[in-house]
Amino acid sequence: MKIITSTQEIQKVTSKLREKNKSIGFIPTMGALHEGHLQLVRESKTKNDVTIVSIFVNPTQFSPTEDLTKYPRPIEQDKKLLRREKVDILFYPSTKEIYPTDFQTTVTVNQLSRILEGKSRPTHFAGVSTIVLKLFNLISPTNTYFGQKDFQQCIVIKQMIRDLNLPIIFNMVPTVREPDGLALSSRNIFLNSQERLQAVNLYQSLLFGKKLILLGNKNVQKIKSEMDNYLQKYKLIRLDYIEICDSENLSPLKVVSKKAVILISANVGKTRLIDNIII
Amino acid sequence: MKIITSTQEIQKVTSKLREKNKSIGFIPTMGALHEGHLQLVRESKTKNDVTIVSIFVNPTQFSPTEDLTKYPRPIEQDKKLLRREKVDILFYPSTKEIYPTDFQTTVTVNQLSRILEGKSRPTHFAGVSTIVLKLFNLISPTNTYFGQKDFQQCIVIKQMIRDLNLPIIFNMVPTVREPDGLALSSRNIFLNSQERLQAVNLYQSLLFGKKLILLGNKNVQKIKSEMDNYLQKYKLIRLDYIEICDSENLSPLKVVSKKAVILISANVGKTRLIDNIII
Repeated sequence: MKIITSTQEIQKVTSKLREKNKSIGFIPTMGALHEGHLQLVRESKTKNDVTIVSIFVNPTQFSPTEDLTKYPRPIEQDKKLLRREKVDILFYPSTKEIYPTDFQTTVTVNQLSRILEGKSRPTHFAGVSTIVLKLFNLISPTNTYFGQKDFQQCIVIKQMIRDLNLPIIFNMVPTVREPDGLALSSRNIFLNSQERLQAVNLYQSLLFGKKLILLGNKNVQKIKSEMDNYLQKYKLIRLDYIEICDSENLSPLKVVSKKAVILISANVGKTRLIDNIII
Repeated sequence: MKIITSTQEIQKVTSKLREKNKSIGFIPTMGALHEGHLQLVRESKTKNDVTIVSIFVNPTQFSPTEDLTKYPRPIEQDKKLLRREKVDILFYPSTKEIYPTDFQTTVTVNQLSRILEGKSRPTHFAGVSTIVLKLFNLISPTNTYFGQKDFQQCIVIKQMIRDLNLPIIFNMVPTVREPDGLALSSRNIFLNSQERLQAVNLYQSLLFGKKLILLGNKNVQKIKSEMDNYLQKYKLIRLDYIEICDSENLSPLKVVSKKAVILISANVGKTRLIDNIII
């Protein structure tokens, strides 16, 4: 596996790959890799000539009150995992390489960035879309792979690709879960053992909500309040939102009619977790 | 000259050109072409295998109070001029093709978009950078050409290219002027004959400012006020600003020391004109 840290170098390498008409699969990550990330890598490996992973803990998608400094950075272990998956190139730039001192450009997918996660984290998605666009321009991938766990992020990036006419195919890969159902996340390591035990109920509540819908319930308010009730017993879970939305464009539904997704966000102890399920 | 109106089609054509390693020179315009634009075309023709011009009157860079509907659109004459210059491809999309109903993404070069023109036109440069990025992604040019007349626009686009890691070479081409010195602009047709006579004094004041500097004056406040005095006699000119800035990043200067540019903006009658001169 080739490790590249400079923007100039990665652009030179990927531009040569494009000249040779090699397809490039690209997975942007913040490191602290788990099976969810590796699943994205495997998807890419089956479909592209070359697979590139980036590891960059992007400061602009954290708010000042969030966990940027304590975000896990087990880089040696990450490299080992990526080598084992036979990733071709790891792009691992410094913050200064990505954001030189006079950097001042923001890409915002306006409506989609304000709802759901965007309500509690108003600058988060602008940070995400800006860094992802930069990485796309550095790597010019044929395909890019994102995990369904961050469902809103998937929709934001898909919309950005469409709005900015990027010639990139977006691939959403199903969430990988622990045996008990908890969605894999680099933040799960922050959960203590009691929190970890209760955290699984986020997914349980999603399964419960889906079951209600499959049994014929269509009233979104009703379903949300039953899910909310279900979660009441778990005292370490502080619910932020449950929403049922159109799974194409995240517009909120009142009645479950078309293709829907249930999204949930909660603090478990001090750790913010999100999950979702497609109906 | 091939005329393409669909985003899919232009992307297909330019991606084929890239596969064949053809260099592409690209000139984005709003039409109403004059010698200034044609100079950009000629520059591109000498340096690239293929020259592409776009004509799109971009609504998002006009504010509601500005002249979007009366902006000139002499498309047949424009085509004739471009054919005469042997332009290879004209990209001429509809507004709906560029901005489908769910379009919602904005690219903002933050600091540079707020100063100078941005003070009177707060949403202007976000409109410009967003459309230019879209066109860049559709055309993936090797070189792009912009006129020096819109100096701040040049600096904004250069900064966007750098910030977003676009693999595009930016070329600024000197302003083309009428025999008396007035900078060519598609908006000059709005001037009545008296206004047209007075308009030339914008450039005269820039020459006067430059002369003061070359004679050894360094005090920006002094130079600006002498230029302002010079313009007082022309009653049809309502000055918006004169600024003397670092020509690399537009930071305002107090003392002329490094590479400087004088920028001027004024309403002549109802028509907003801008001009600049590099020291």
